Amino acid sequence: MSERKKAEDFAKEQKEISVSEFFEKNKHLLGFDNPTKSLLMAVKEAVDNSLDASEEAGILPDITVKIKQVDDNTYIVSVADNGPGIVKENVPRVFGKLLYGSKFHRLLQGRGQQGIGISSVTLYAQLTTGVPTKVWSKVESKKKTYYCELHLNTAKNEPDIIKEDEIEKDVVGEHGVKVEMEIHGRYRKTVEDYLKQTSVSNPFAKIAYTAPDGTKTIFPRSVNELPKPPKRMKPHPHGMEFGILQRLLQNTSSRTLQSFLTNEFSSVGQQSAKEICKLAKLPEDSKPQELDRAAIDKLIKGMQTAKVQRPPTDCLSPIGSAELEKSLKKEYPNAEFITSITRDPEVYRGFPFLVEVGIVYGLSDESGTKKKKEDDEKKEDTIELIRFANRVPLLYQQSACALTEAAKDVDWRRYNLSQSGNNLPSGPMKLVVHICSVWVPFMSESKEAVAAYPEIIKETKLAIQDAGRKLSSYLSGKRRAGEQKRRMQMFDRYAGEVSDAIAILTGKNDKDIEKKLKALVESRVHIKEEFVDESTDTKDVKKEEKK
Amino acid sequence: MSERKKAEDFAKEQKEISVSEFFEKNKHLLGFDNPTKSLLMAVKEAVDNSLDASEEAGILPDITVKIKQVDDNTYIVSVADNGPGIVKENVPRVFGKLLYGSKFHRLLQGRGQQGIGISSVTLYAQLTTGVPTKVWSKVESKKKTYYCELHLNTAKNEPDIIKEDEIEKDVVGEHGVKVEMEIHGRYRKTVEDYLKQTSVSNPFAKIAYTAPDGTKTIFPRSVNELPKPPKRMKPHPHGMEFGILQRLLQNTSSRTLQSFLTNEFSSVGQQSAKEICKLAKLPEDSKPQELDRAAIDKLIKGMQTAKVQRPPTDCLSPIGSAELEKSLKKEYPNAEFITSITRDPEVYRGFPFLVEVGIVYGLSDESGTKKKKEDDEKKEDTIELIRFANRVPLLYQQSACALTEAAKDVDWRRYNLSQSGNNLPSGPMKLVVHICSVWVPFMSESKEAVAAYPEIIKETKLAIQDAGRKLSSYLSGKRRAGEQKRRMQMFDRYAGEVSDAIAILTGKNDKDIEKKLKALVESRVHIKEEFVDESTDTKDVKKEEKK
Repeated sequence: MSERKKAEDFAKEQKEISVSEFFEKNKHLLGFDNPTKSLLMAVKEAVDNSLDASEEAGILPDITVKIKQVDDNTYIVSVADNGPGIVKENVPRVFGKLLYGSKFHRLLQGRGQQGIGISSVTLYAQLTTGVPTKVWSKVESKKKTYYCELHLNTAKNEPDIIKEDEIEKDVVGEHGVKVEMEIHGRYRKTVEDYLKQTSVSNPFAKIAYTAPDGTKTIFPRSVNELPKPPKRMKPHPHGMEFGILQRLLQNTSSRTLQSFLTNEFSSVGQQSAKEICKLAKLPEDSKPQELDRAAIDKLIKGMQTAKVQRPPTDCLSPIGSAELEKSLKKEYPNAEFITSITRDPEVYRGFPFLVEVGIVYGLSDESGTKKKKEDDEKKEDTIELIRFANRVPLLYQQSACALTEAAKDVDWRRYNLSQSGNNLPSGPMKLVVHICSVWVPFMSESKEAVAAYPEIIKETKLAIQDAGRKLSSYLSGKRRAGEQKRRMQMFDRYAGEVSDAIAILTGKNDKDIEKKLKALVESRVHIKEEFVDESTDTKDVKKEEKK
Repeated sequence: MSERKKAEDFAKEQKEISVSEFFEKNKHLLGFDNPTKSLLMAVKEAVDNSLDASEEAGILPDITVKIKQVDDNTYIVSVADNGPGIVKENVPRVFGKLLYGSKFHRLLQGRGQQGIGISSVTLYAQLTTGVPTKVWSKVESKKKTYYCELHLNTAKNEPDIIKEDEIEKDVVGEHGVKVEMEIHGRYRKTVEDYLKQTSVSNPFAKIAYTAPDGTKTIFPRSVNELPKPPKRMKPHPHGMEFGILQRLLQNTSSRTLQSFLTNEFSSVGQQSAKEICKLAKLPEDSKPQELDRAAIDKLIKGMQTAKVQRPPTDCLSPIGSAELEKSLKKEYPNAEFITSITRDPEVYRGFPFLVEVGIVYGLSDESGTKKKKEDDEKKEDTIELIRFANRVPLLYQQSACALTEAAKDVDWRRYNLSQSGNNLPSGPMKLVVHICSVWVPFMSESKEAVAAYPEIIKETKLAIQDAGRKLSSYLSGKRRAGEQKRRMQMFDRYAGEVSDAIAILTGKNDKDIEKKLKALVESRVHIKEEFVDESTDTKDVKKEEKK
């Protein structure tokens, strides 16, 4: 037994792991699992930040993205914006420290929420090329532009500033940020896909893009106004968890339980506060700091059972049904049919969220193969699903995403599309799904897929069904038009002969007879159309909503 | 423009996020996304730690798991082991600080690797019930048992000790740890599934389990010896990344590049070190600390192109083909056919890994429905896939896992199983896949699925094919036996009459003739069997290995 390892031997090895070391070793959690994706992540994190900053500052975003190839597997990504800029003191930590940012400690819809994104690119750059990340930041109140080059010290999770300066040179105009990162990667069309989709979900943004081969693309604005800014919200009592409530009670400046409830929560007025206290069997004037475990337990049950209004919805900023449709028409000008819908907000774990859906149907592709595909319907491709979360396109992990699960779960046959088993349907169609929320639950730090909370899946399914019904009306209209045309053609083929025969039998003019016959047929066809019954479809859907 | 938000306004909101706050808000990343899974996570994290500690200390693990229901949605989970214990000073941080442990800063196969697991349960307990986690730890060198109750301070990511004591009472015997956590959860059979599978992959462990209803189950040892302990390894030059190499160069005590290479890496001797220097065009006596970015770049290219031996394989501890088979026979005593294989180690990103596969075929379930299913082969269920990583069962996110992807990618029709499209095959079968590595790349902190590194998928597929061929031989043997039996039955039906006829024709005794005829048929059947050609199968597989 002497060779056995003792507790004291283990003790020597037990030590702290810095969060940067953790993510350095687990870089795939941040989205850096292959070269193509890594290059995209660098573009995406920088662009998401630029959009967040401009939008929140009330500035119409004007973003410039450049990718330059250095060698076989090395690229320089640069992204510049016209946002408010970042004050000098905060630049190093925004770009050189994981878990640092303005978005985590508040309930407000944003693209970023974790404070990991852009600093993870700095980490990845130093891991793969060792070249420091360069940042230029100009704020309106200062004359000079702050410039720095930095690394991320993984042992401490703090920025290492290699070089800094205040420069006269005008790099980002009156205000804004430019970042430049040299990383290992592989260039693929996914970057364009991401920018194109970003342009769809952010119709108020202008993005100018230069690819490694020098090709320039402009994604223009289709809307010249920023969306209504989402409002910050307080936590909602229905989603409260013990630990969070305990902390709020400890830290509140409210002196009584009742005022604590009205001050610290959304949707709680005097009346609801009193009701919660009554249900929890706690005096309204209890001191928040003095509640013990048992009392907090009762309070939480009171909060969950009391009738409280839903969370406020002005904290959400959807793309908007009209704007989404406009965006889609801009991107797919040759589509046969485009529709979109925006649902009312719903709630999961006390967080409000909202789902929007767009459908683009009948895409004639450049090679003109569409016709062929329609003829041979059995071999149609699966539709393309385009996912967004808080206006950010989700390009990876489609099969693990709650939005995909919802789309598969819909019975598409009901909307005139073919579908095998529980898969996505087939057809010349793009399905756009957007979830926005003050807190989107992602499956990993790389934010590629939405976690499968039942409330999210249910609401997404209902949203898709709403849009699906619009598609279905269009498709049955199209089918009816086709049938009419065939009927008329059929008649045309025999009309002459029938008229001749009737003319001989009746002795009347054959041309007159043919004319009358045609008018008669045409009126019948129209009458029939009016009687087409769509009630079955509506009934089925109501049944599903009840489930 | 006056209402625009300025850089200075943003600055006030930019702040640090503690890693505990991050995971508290993202508890689904740690596996706490629903009550059933949360209860399982608590059991799993504690048991995994117990197994790791006992195994590493050279002690045959003896683990006691108890789940007690407190109310509708609240349970107390307690896990006790006979491991080496944890020294008093380290207990609070092991259980009350995320990213703290002995396993991150080394390359050694282990169940835990991140220092997140058990402290995440403490976090979840305080979030849902607020009851502190209780720990008893007895190390061999001390007389008393250390006891403490603790929370995790999320703002600081440090333990808050509520109560501590050194007690006389014998809670865990001579040495060991017991932990007790009160959490919200829902009890389901998944806990038994996890323990049963753990027993399969850890045949040397004894686990005693008490369910909430008081039912006791013992999962006994099927092997009375610990596996050969895996060895620690140094990094392998082929997987080196710029940032890591740069850090190693900075921190080394070696004075020359050549000695740096031989001291700090596995599989690098004098010869390989010289070759690397030559390829990198760097003098062998360069000072490691003095290499600049360009030199490190050259060095890394030299390391990647030089011929270096594969990483050592004694750092891996597979279950072992014989042990896995034994385990499976213990768990599925009624199975018709059981086989298993262990592959040679392979490498991804410089990390060695190894895949093992077990197949359990022909399971007669309790209700005796097996016969019925066989008759109606079209409606057969999909096989059950049982995944392990470093001996830990993976119970969730099956569809996102590289091991599943590999299993689906195999052409199972070749091994006599039915398979539709690229799905898992159908049949009365369980497929066990185990990956062990010094660093398993998981898809999330909850360690439920293996990330899809191409090397891992390829090797897993080859391992499954190895086992698949064994199954195929068995199944064709079975089919042949069936055919023989039918042939013999057919003969039996007519043998009497044929013998009678021959007896009449030849005047010999009919019984003798029948006997001889039967012997003749039997010998023919056996000759035919020897000629059964399996070369096609082997050829196909070789082709696949080359791909």
